[in-house]
Amino acid sequence: MSYFDAASAAPLHPVARQALAASLDEGWADPARLYREGRRARLLLDAAREAAADAVGCRPDELTFTPSGTRAVHAGIAGVLTGRRRVGNHLIVSEVEHSSVLHSAEAHEAAGGSVTRVPVLRTGEATAGSYGEALRPDTALACLQSANHEVGTEQPVSAVAELCREAGVPLLVDGAQSLGWGRVPGGWSVLTGSAHKWGGPSGVGLLVVRKGVRFAAQGPVDERESGRAAGFENIPAIVAAAASLRAVRAEAEQEAVRLRELTERIRTRVPSLVPDVEVVGDPVRRLPGIVTFSCLYVDGETLLHALDREGFSVSSGSSCTSSTLTPSHVLRAMGVLSEGNVRVSLPYGASAEDVERFLSVLPGTVAAVREKLGAPAAPAASVAPAAPAVVDAAAPQGDARVVGTPQGDALVVDALGKRCPIPVIELAKVFGDVPVGGTVRVLSDDEAARLDIPAWCEMRGQEYVGEEPADHGSAYVVRRVS
Amino acid sequence: MSYFDAASAAPLHPVARQALAASLDEGWADPARLYREGRRARLLLDAAREAAADAVGCRPDELTFTPSGTRAVHAGIAGVLTGRRRVGNHLIVSEVEHSSVLHSAEAHEAAGGSVTRVPVLRTGEATAGSYGEALRPDTALACLQSANHEVGTEQPVSAVAELCREAGVPLLVDGAQSLGWGRVPGGWSVLTGSAHKWGGPSGVGLLVVRKGVRFAAQGPVDERESGRAAGFENIPAIVAAAASLRAVRAEAEQEAVRLRELTERIRTRVPSLVPDVEVVGDPVRRLPGIVTFSCLYVDGETLLHALDREGFSVSSGSSCTSSTLTPSHVLRAMGVLSEGNVRVSLPYGASAEDVERFLSVLPGTVAAVREKLGAPAAPAASVAPAAPAVVDAAAPQGDARVVGTPQGDALVVDALGKRCPIPVIELAKVFGDVPVGGTVRVLSDDEAARLDIPAWCEMRGQEYVGEEPADHGSAYVVRRVS
Repeated sequence: MSYFDAASAAPLHPVARQALAASLDEGWADPARLYREGRRARLLLDAAREAAADAVGCRPDELTFTPSGTRAVHAGIAGVLTGRRRVGNHLIVSEVEHSSVLHSAEAHEAAGGSVTRVPVLRTGEATAGSYGEALRPDTALACLQSANHEVGTEQPVSAVAELCREAGVPLLVDGAQSLGWGRVPGGWSVLTGSAHKWGGPSGVGLLVVRKGVRFAAQGPVDERESGRAAGFENIPAIVAAAASLRAVRAEAEQEAVRLRELTERIRTRVPSLVPDVEVVGDPVRRLPGIVTFSCLYVDGETLLHALDREGFSVSSGSSCTSSTLTPSHVLRAMGVLSEGNVRVSLPYGASAEDVERFLSVLPGTVAAVREKLGAPAAPAASVAPAAPAVVDAAAPQGDARVVGTPQGDALVVDALGKRCPIPVIELAKVFGDVPVGGTVRVLSDDEAARLDIPAWCEMRGQEYVGEEPADHGSAYVVRRVS
Repeated sequence: MSYFDAASAAPLHPVARQALAASLDEGWADPARLYREGRRARLLLDAAREAAADAVGCRPDELTFTPSGTRAVHAGIAGVLTGRRRVGNHLIVSEVEHSSVLHSAEAHEAAGGSVTRVPVLRTGEATAGSYGEALRPDTALACLQSANHEVGTEQPVSAVAELCREAGVPLLVDGAQSLGWGRVPGGWSVLTGSAHKWGGPSGVGLLVVRKGVRFAAQGPVDERESGRAAGFENIPAIVAAAASLRAVRAEAEQEAVRLRELTERIRTRVPSLVPDVEVVGDPVRRLPGIVTFSCLYVDGETLLHALDREGFSVSSGSSCTSSTLTPSHVLRAMGVLSEGNVRVSLPYGASAEDVERFLSVLPGTVAAVREKLGAPAAPAASVAPAAPAVVDAAAPQGDARVVGTPQGDALVVDALGKRCPIPVIELAKVFGDVPVGGTVRVLSDDEAARLDIPAWCEMRGQEYVGEEPADHGSAYVVRRVS
């Protein structure tokens, strides 16, 4: 088995396991109590806080342990927004933040606050310039991840922090994906992290609030964790989290070089091994262990299951795997292909052999999924043009069915009720049937089509004309230019 | 070492430790993922939910795991208050609830809601009658603990639930102290619990919301735990929590009999072994393992340290051990003595030998603390009366100092700036100096005096006249009747 989804959760580091086992005996009591079991627990908690603060680069009294990274984000954003409500109620986030940040933004809007969602480049980068434009006199807080969790792109945290500093606005950095690799650079004000991303146990997040940042903890609080994280401290897990952070940091520099070389192999070789693939994310300014690509004409969920059967555990931002049936907000914000999306995120210690085996297995796996879905084998534009017709992708097997009168050189594909990647496959199948200069209108009610049809056009060098409202969905219009 | 503070946190049950170790290997991955590690984690989570639901007496889909009992209470109260806000914004809690409930009530008031705090009997019982009186047409939620965490008194949950049912008001039961002993009886609507109270690990709480209860989760949420507890699930800890709940339940009936006999020994023998002790809490309707008593003329913190040196870990609701310098809200609501308060809460497996050793050590330990504080050795009323005088307890060693002119048969003790138990000790020292019918006015700015001076009067059979405002504090007036 090769587990390639470290960006979701890393397996427990041996040091974390050891620390957890040891502190189950010493750290179960209430650290607020005066007796020896309580004092022992307090000593462990204090030591863990010092170790974590040292790794993060803050004072121990600036660092709070929370029950998860998500809770750290929720508490951090709510605390600063409330602490600075006299300044204003404007919040800035990037469009590619982790869902915990975006959920906080939605809650802020629901409570009457205003939110600017900063767009990103096609690489996934939220530029400092965009943050500079978003800053307003009533901005209470800006949020930016240190690196993206789906595509690995590193964000310009230092530059954005500097702009925020000049504007007098605190910057919250979600450091979940990068804290295992090193300190978050720059003059951030609030930092969050999650231990199970660096090989620590579940149940531990970090919330660092720099001295001087106005902060008002929200919801009922108690006396624990400086009033910023209510509830009995999970000391054994906290000890394990701090210990494993130190441990991974000790290996980080060397391991980063190794994993970067392995993900580079995937970045460079996948496009030549598998036709119609788009590798996404910044090729250089990226996390060492993450590489993401999307495969045209592929159903993400089927591909994940097929790879799982081959012994590879990867994740996908494809809508085909999501219960909400909308494609990953990250891929959407980047404007890249979402169908057949695969994120490989290598854990510490991932072997070159496993990566090579992945590269050897992937082409056949993708081909099998495509064959099953009846995807066209070669670029459709090479097919000789025939008379325009109206086809109905909703028919069994995706067979073409005339549903109306062809209008000039326009061909209509009715893919209503069909999920990705079927609308794109149907587009590709008939595209050779329209003459150069002619158009295909794809009727679809699948959210992914909005992303994947333009992406297909870009990959095929065809013109994406635009989207028009249609009965029960949208019409996506594509013009054949070659 | 004898750890007698199970009501704060129980040591990890061997079954919990075993389950935790096993599920660290199987349960670290994201249960929302499709690959095998994710599916394995999901299976563990589902099985733990079923086991916990069975132990609690609910459907699995009614049960949510939270990061702590405190978080379960916060989320449960906020969720029902919001879900039922069209009914009204009135919340009922008892005065002796856990701080997590009272903090939620404070947050509700701060947000404009109204709260009724139901008083309790001297035993700590919140009667059904009081809840019946508190219910209003605009009551959104009532909360009642299954049993009190400081004195062990069981609450009339079934009767209160029935009243609430008739009124159409959901009842939230904080079952933290009793879930290890058995299901919470009666028709409750929402139930909360905390695994580390029953020998499970830290980091796991339970929130059960019965189908049909209007519930709107507050704060940013995500797709985890039915949208009621955001953040990555701590599956190894959840598995251990469920396993240990089953394990302690299997032993509960037998262990309850055994611990009840041991706490009964303490209840009955402490008053004869130690002079001037008040055992508090209901003598019959109580948890098996908890017994609480207060010792006149004793500083709780000093007593705890002394007992710790003798190898006993106990806790105290005495103000003398609290950073906030107010006596336990539970003891205050009960109207009992707070000074020198000791809570003994026996963990599963506590031995009779350890309890006997505690009983043999306690008298000498209390006597030593009293001697150090210069407490009167025998009831002050037996001292022959002398001429009235004004004494100043603030002087070094607590020596009497004339600070004003005696008014008739009234004697004034200035204990301003002195912490419990000094004001009561000074009262007792001079009480023999006033004639029968005369009064002593104790000037004090210590919150505990408000509780402990009336309690002293009750124990001594003297008349507590009342409290009057005074410069820098209050004057507590006591009349000598014998």
